[in-house]
Amino acid sequence: MSEIEARVILFNERPEGHPNDQTFRYETVKVPSSAPEGQILLKLVYLSVDPYMRSYLRTAPLNKPFSGYAIAEVVDTKNDKYKKGQHVFGTFKWQTYQIHDGNSTVQQEIRAIPSDIDKKVPLSAWLGVIGMPGRTAFFGLLHNEVGRMKPGQTVLVSAAAGAVGSMVGQLAKLKGAKRVIGTAGGPEKCKHVKEKYGFDECLDYKALDDTDKMLEALKKAAPEGIDVYFDNVGGHVTFAALQHMNKFARLALCGNISSYNSKNPKEEKIPNILGLNSIYGSHKICGFIQSDFADEFDQFYKEVPPLVAEGKIKFDETLSKGFDTVPQAFAGLFTGANTGKVVIQVE
Amino acid sequence: MSEIEARVILFNERPEGHPNDQTFRYETVKVPSSAPEGQILLKLVYLSVDPYMRSYLRTAPLNKPFSGYAIAEVVDTKNDKYKKGQHVFGTFKWQTYQIHDGNSTVQQEIRAIPSDIDKKVPLSAWLGVIGMPGRTAFFGLLHNEVGRMKPGQTVLVSAAAGAVGSMVGQLAKLKGAKRVIGTAGGPEKCKHVKEKYGFDECLDYKALDDTDKMLEALKKAAPEGIDVYFDNVGGHVTFAALQHMNKFARLALCGNISSYNSKNPKEEKIPNILGLNSIYGSHKICGFIQSDFADEFDQFYKEVPPLVAEGKIKFDETLSKGFDTVPQAFAGLFTGANTGKVVIQVE
Repeated sequence: MSEIEARVILFNERPEGHPNDQTFRYETVKVPSSAPEGQILLKLVYLSVDPYMRSYLRTAPLNKPFSGYAIAEVVDTKNDKYKKGQHVFGTFKWQTYQIHDGNSTVQQEIRAIPSDIDKKVPLSAWLGVIGMPGRTAFFGLLHNEVGRMKPGQTVLVSAAAGAVGSMVGQLAKLKGAKRVIGTAGGPEKCKHVKEKYGFDECLDYKALDDTDKMLEALKKAAPEGIDVYFDNVGGHVTFAALQHMNKFARLALCGNISSYNSKNPKEEKIPNILGLNSIYGSHKICGFIQSDFADEFDQFYKEVPPLVAEGKIKFDETLSKGFDTVPQAFAGLFTGANTGKVVIQVE
Repeated sequence: MSEIEARVILFNERPEGHPNDQTFRYETVKVPSSAPEGQILLKLVYLSVDPYMRSYLRTAPLNKPFSGYAIAEVVDTKNDKYKKGQHVFGTFKWQTYQIHDGNSTVQQEIRAIPSDIDKKVPLSAWLGVIGMPGRTAFFGLLHNEVGRMKPGQTVLVSAAAGAVGSMVGQLAKLKGAKRVIGTAGGPEKCKHVKEKYGFDECLDYKALDDTDKMLEALKKAAPEGIDVYFDNVGGHVTFAALQHMNKFARLALCGNISSYNSKNPKEEKIPNILGLNSIYGSHKICGFIQSDFADEFDQFYKEVPPLVAEGKIKFDETLSKGFDTVPQAFAGLFTGANTGKVVIQVE
């Protein structure tokens, strides 16, 4: 049986704090050049680095291939569900070529990209607005068990320039929010959030650098109070937001970027958010991940790809070219260096 | 028009930390001895002191009568809705005699006690298991928007010897919880919680005095993890519980007694509970107060008083005799001195 050489990225060393150049290492492995019976041979086209992966560094096994959301091309198939040349979206190993059994589970998703949508939207959008970040925004903002946003409400979104946050703001507007406010780092990003994504206001968390300053600004930006806070970040933005939330307000707890690189997350201290505001305000803090709603993904795929195709949802990409750039692109997620979704073009 | 002398308790001084003997003062006022047209004259019979009142000390107006849940007798009536000699339950001024317009609102509730129930359960139960604490337990544990407890689940309750906590544990058992665990201060209280209220286990938070010790004990007491945590207390019990909650677990956030006497609640620090456990566990932290469910109180009054009359719900009372004992009884709430509901018998 003939073989091809594939390059693979292994988890090399658990980092303290930021991921660094020892976190991953590259190796070369042999992969069959044609798919075994019932299986498919995939060639990675795009792969995704996302902030949620930071937490996997605490628990993922060392010296094994790292994996994440990616887009691949079916280069050989012995599985009737897939055609040669077709694009698939799912969670794949960070390995240039790989054999896959073609079965989709919540842990190891694989989804054939319908050819009609493939023609209308850029392929990389499957890693962003119509991929995991898009689903996160959609279900976190709108689902009854999480943000439960209703028309006429005021929505706050942290990390509004990011892949998830920018999508949340646009969906909020499309679904009838009265006022949508973002937070982002620096005046350039804030300008972009308002001009491209249509947020009504965007607050610079680097200038408003403590809870009191942020609270003051939020009171001006959201004079009627906050009904839904979609939180990607935590930290002082969140402590301020919790003091300006309306009765029955909901916090969709999506991420906590501000703490991901903390060396001792168990030692980290925050203000006592379980104090009286939360109780008498009947606030709901709703942790979630998009895979909680795997049974309802069809609703998302019915509604959102057409909006993207019609240009009603905009997005930015930071494209990083080459399989060699993965570690650097990953580290960049935690320094605020990027705008929009970070995508690696494998070759 | 003839008048009677009534004694009244005014809010005298905002305390730092614990309420003390300067927090309240007594005065004498004149009240008409017969009800004006359309109104009623009430004589206080029992009044209630509750931990939630601690927070009112931060905001209630000084030099005005303090108020809270109480039971009164209608001693004169010119309002068709009320009969002379009837007992009423509601939020009344801490004043031995008072005129009331008889109208019930969420802020100023007044509810005539049905004569059939009045015969079957002790009057003071209207301040406990079938009053505000009972409603808090019922809606916090069972309502879809808060604890959402289902048969077969594991329930944890902090302050399990208290008026709310003891009711939560008994309702959980009656509604089919698989395992009910409490926390309370000291071996005596823990024994009582198990023997009288039927909890499966009760952990002594004074012996298990830090998060790690409490977490270790919780893992043994709840080997299948916690599905619903009804939290009256906050502090290290809560930080431990949050690390032992099942996927989709719910925290009914009822109280935060551990912080009520904090001098600078805004400066208080807790571990970063917004970290990854909450997100990947899809936990819901649900602040609430029982008045959120005012439209659904009928369900409670249909279901719970018969259970009390049949002896299926047990309760303890610490009866404090005399209107003069109110300040002392109130302060005692925050030192763990009492078991069960603290009720003041006015005369």
